[in-house]
This record gives sequence, structure tokens and C-alpha cells, in this order.
Amino acid sequence: MKIAFLGTGLMGGPMAKNLAVSGFHISAWNRTPSKAAFLKEFEVDIKISAAEAVKNADVIISMLSDGDASHEMQNDEKIRGNLSPNCTWIEMGSIKPDEARAHSVNLNDLNVNYLDAPVSGGTKGAENGSLAIMVGGDSTVFAKVEDAFEPLGRAVFVGPTGSGQLAKLANQAIVAITIGAVAEATLLLEEGGADAGAVRDALLGGFADSTILQQHGKRMSERNFEPGGPSRLQLKDLRNILAEAKALKIDLPFSLSAHDRYTRLVKSLAGSELDHSALFIELLDINGRKT
Amino acid sequence: MKIAFLGTGLMGGPMAKNLAVSGFHISAWNRTPSKAAFLKEFEVDIKISAAEAVKNADVIISMLSDGDASHEMQNDEKIRGNLSPNCTWIEMGSIKPDEARAHSVNLNDLNVNYLDAPVSGGTKGAENGSLAIMVGGDSTVFAKVEDAFEPLGRAVFVGPTGSGQLAKLANQAIVAITIGAVAEATLLLEEGGADAGAVRDALLGGFADSTILQQHGKRMSERNFEPGGPSRLQLKDLRNILAEAKALKIDLPFSLSAHDRYTRLVKSLAGSELDHSALFIELLDINGRKT
Repeated sequence: MKIAFLGTGLMGGPMAKNLAVSGFHISAWNRTPSKAAFLKEFEVDIKISAAEAVKNADVIISMLSDGDASHEMQNDEKIRGNLSPNCTWIEMGSIKPDEARAHSVNLNDLNVNYLDAPVSGGTKGAENGSLAIMVGGDSTVFAKVEDAFEPLGRAVFVGPTGSGQLAKLANQAIVAITIGAVAEATLLLEEGGADAGAVRDALLGGFADSTILQQHGKRMSERNFEPGGPSRLQLKDLRNILAEAKALKIDLPFSLSAHDRYTRLVKSLAGSELDHSALFIELLDINGRKT
Repeated sequence: MKIAFLGTGLMGGPMAKNLAVSGFHISAWNRTPSKAAFLKEFEVDIKISAAEAVKNADVIISMLSDGDASHEMQNDEKIRGNLSPNCTWIEMGSIKPDEARAHSVNLNDLNVNYLDAPVSGGTKGAENGSLAIMVGGDSTVFAKVEDAFEPLGRAVFVGPTGSGQLAKLANQAIVAITIGAVAEATLLLEEGGADAGAVRDALLGGFADSTILQQHGKRMSERNFEPGGPSRLQLKDLRNILAEAKALKIDLPFSLSAHDRYTRLVKSLAGSELDHSALFIELLDINGRKT
């Protein structure tokens, strides 16, 4: 299986490397070529254009900045001309479910298959090959290219085109709201005079326990808001969640409230570049408490 | 160490048994004596009154229906007369932090120590001796009686009197709000056409993962709301959380919203005896969707 990898940045770089090390033949392209150069020692074939990279590829993986960047690639006439019939384009960046659905239609017109397969697990997961990969599209296409996911992490097929992106949004909604829950628990404990760190220990393994409680809760107690995941990205995710909810004509009250409060954190409380656990700062501010 | 166990119901029964099996000398009392009878075969000394049970005890554990029931016991003249000086009363029921603080003062007047040590883990945890036990009070008193917790589960000291109860409330706030988060994720996935079960699998071990996602999320997908933990008890906890927040003069916006929505579920949507994951029914109702 020949794989073209488009976008070898913080996430895409180690992913392309892991594929190459596993024995796949990889051609790669990056907008800033210097960021792709380290891949040469893993026998990755660095190309000077995306159109060159996709030539003869069975699988194209895009890991670009956003949906617009992918859209541009897929509408570039040189790239379109070089796509092999029946090849599969896998979008591994986080884009909107609607964009994924539109990209699928656009590529199917060229007889090119499409999967949306965003990931969770950050740069560590990309480096260790331990990403959670949520795959939407046609299950027979997934079966055909499933081996390509193996060096990257654990891929699970979650439904028709757009479902991978929808799963990523569901993930982000849970993360934002759970951070809000842990912030309230932490404030309640602090104001009531309990030791929040000891309580996190006591709750380990119980119904209230989560990675968010242990990691983000600790950050709140320590007032350590170095990112991690910056609040502006959490806010972008929440915007996409509400846009999708609107398209589906559903109300998600906690997601809406989380959106409004992250907006306040980012716009009024200078929290844009603080870790998303800084929703605790917004809660302190609501209550007239200083950080 | 001689232990008096007051209240041997669904939780207290197996706890008293585990203490007896571990070699402690246990005297026990229960309002309905038949529920204590099974303890005889574990050499528990069943008493006909609470006053008899507490006589000569080094430790009294109360596991009664609520704070009022404990209050009544502690103000019964016969019981008060039978408490040994320097014994320790451990409240293991879930009562309000303020009640715990009042009980402590009341017993300290008799030269009796007091710890509040509510538990999490349900009847299964009580039976297996795997409860999470959150202990508030004086740390030297905790050290003195710590061995008595060992057969019951994992005890963690979390701060001054009332802190154990506060920790339990923090636990319940996180549970209620996380259920709300998982409900929104589940609805988003269903309406968008993704397979929520596959997404739960994909998210396993990631930032959004939790026991609530896996267990309560599954209940939502399967529309299985047999309790489990009934919604009326979740609502009672949320009332106690807001009462404590009011006493501390803090606002907890997600907890307030969860309280209002569980109230609606219990009062308007006949959800009183449904599992607390039935907040999903309330979300469906907001959105004009049928269960």
C-alpha cells in the first residue's frame, strides 16, 4: 500500500514516521518543507508539491490546519488529475462534519473513496502510535485500508461519513462540561475547607473519577494553567458543536453554557492561551474570588 | 477495639459482617431487628436497643437513614449515658456537612470524638469491602481508629469535620453534571447518525472517558433506566449541594442547572424511580424527541 501524507507538522510528522517505520512506502509533502526534512532518514520520499505526492498513491492522508486547507487541496486541478481511480482519501484532521460530508461527495465524483478519521491523544499519542482514531465513511472502504491505521493507534469505525468528526465533537463536549463539573467540585471543597487533593485521591476509581478529575483538577488546585490544550481551541470546538447541533435542530444546554463561559474566559478574562482547565478562573470570577 | 454498629440495612449489614469477619468484636442494633439476625452467624452480638449496643464500645459506627436519625440517637439520654469517655462516633451515612459539624460539637461536649466518613461504592462496595471512604474530623482521631476502616474499603482523610460529607457532595455534583455531558454527546451522535456504542469504544482510555460514559452512556443508548441509582436520590444530593453552596455564598452554575433539570425529570416527567442516567429522557423531552 502506497501512502501519500499531506501535512507533516506536530501531529502529522510523527504519524508519517510511524507509518514509514512500519514498512509502508510513504511520499510526503508539507507546506513548510523544512518540517518534513527529518522524515528522509526513515526513507520517506519528500515531494516538492502535494500533486507530486499523491501520484500513484493508494491512500492519501491529510493532516492539515483545518477543513478549508483540505478543501483547497481537493479542488486543486493538478492534485485532482494525479489521484488514482479507487484510491482512498483519509481526512485525519479535525474538521466540521458538514465539511467531511461535502469532501466525500466532491471526491466520489472522481471515483475516489473518502473516510473522515480524526484523532484524539495529542502529540504524545501521535509519537507513541497510541491515538484514538474515530472513523466515518463506508465500512467496506474502512476494511480495505484498515492496516494503514495500525501503526498510528486504535481505529474504530463509528458510522457513515461525518461520524468520525461527530465523535470528535462529542468527545470535546464531554471534556468541556466535565472540566466545568470538576471546577465546581474543587471550589466547593476549597470554600468548605476540605483538601481537594485528598478528595481526588479518595474518589480514585469511583463513579466521579476521570482523567479530567485527576489531571485538570490538580491543575485547578495548583493554579497551573500552562497549556496543555489552550482555551481558544476548546472554544473553537464548542462553536463547532453548537453549529452542528443547530444544523441537527437540537438544543444542548450544558454545551451552550460551556460555550458562553469559555467565550467569557477567552474574551473578557484574557484566558485564550491558558489551559482549558482555566474555566476554573471563570468560575472564581463569577464568585468574586481571586485566582 | 470494640465496635458498636447502628443500622445494619443494605449498606450497614455487609459492613458490620466484614468487620466481624476481620476479628473485631461487634455489637449491633437495627430498628428492624430481623434485618440484623443474619449477623449472628458471624458472632455479632445483636442488641435489643442502641443504648445497649454502645455500652463499652471504643467506636460507634452509625449508618442510618439520614442526619435526623443520627441526631435523634445522639440526643437519646440512655445512649448518651452509655457512651464511654474518649470513644469515637463515626458517622458513615450521607448527611449534610452542617449536620456533621453540629453532631461533632454535641458529642465533644460528652468527651466523645467524632468523624464524618461517608462512603461511595454502593451495596457492591459494601459487600466486597471496597468502599471509597472520605473522612473528615481530627487527624489524630482518624489515626486512632483507622484500622476499623480497613475491612470496609479505602479510607482517605480529607480535612476537618464536615469535609467527608463535603467530599461526598463534590462526588455527587461531578456525577450529575457528567451524566448531563454524556447525555448531550449521546444525543448529538444519535441525531447525526453515528453509532454511539462504537464511539464509546473509540473514546476508551482518552480524556473524555469515564465510568459514567461507559455505564450510563450505554444505559442511554439502550434506553435502560432501571435503577441503579434512582433520580430522586440524585436530586436530594443536588439539593444538599446547593444548600451547602448557599451557606458558603458561592454560585455553582452547572450544579444549579443539573438541579433544575433533575427536578423537572422527577416532578414533571415521572422519573423519580428511574436511574439517574434518565437525565437523557429530560434532554430528549427538551428537544421534543420521544424516548
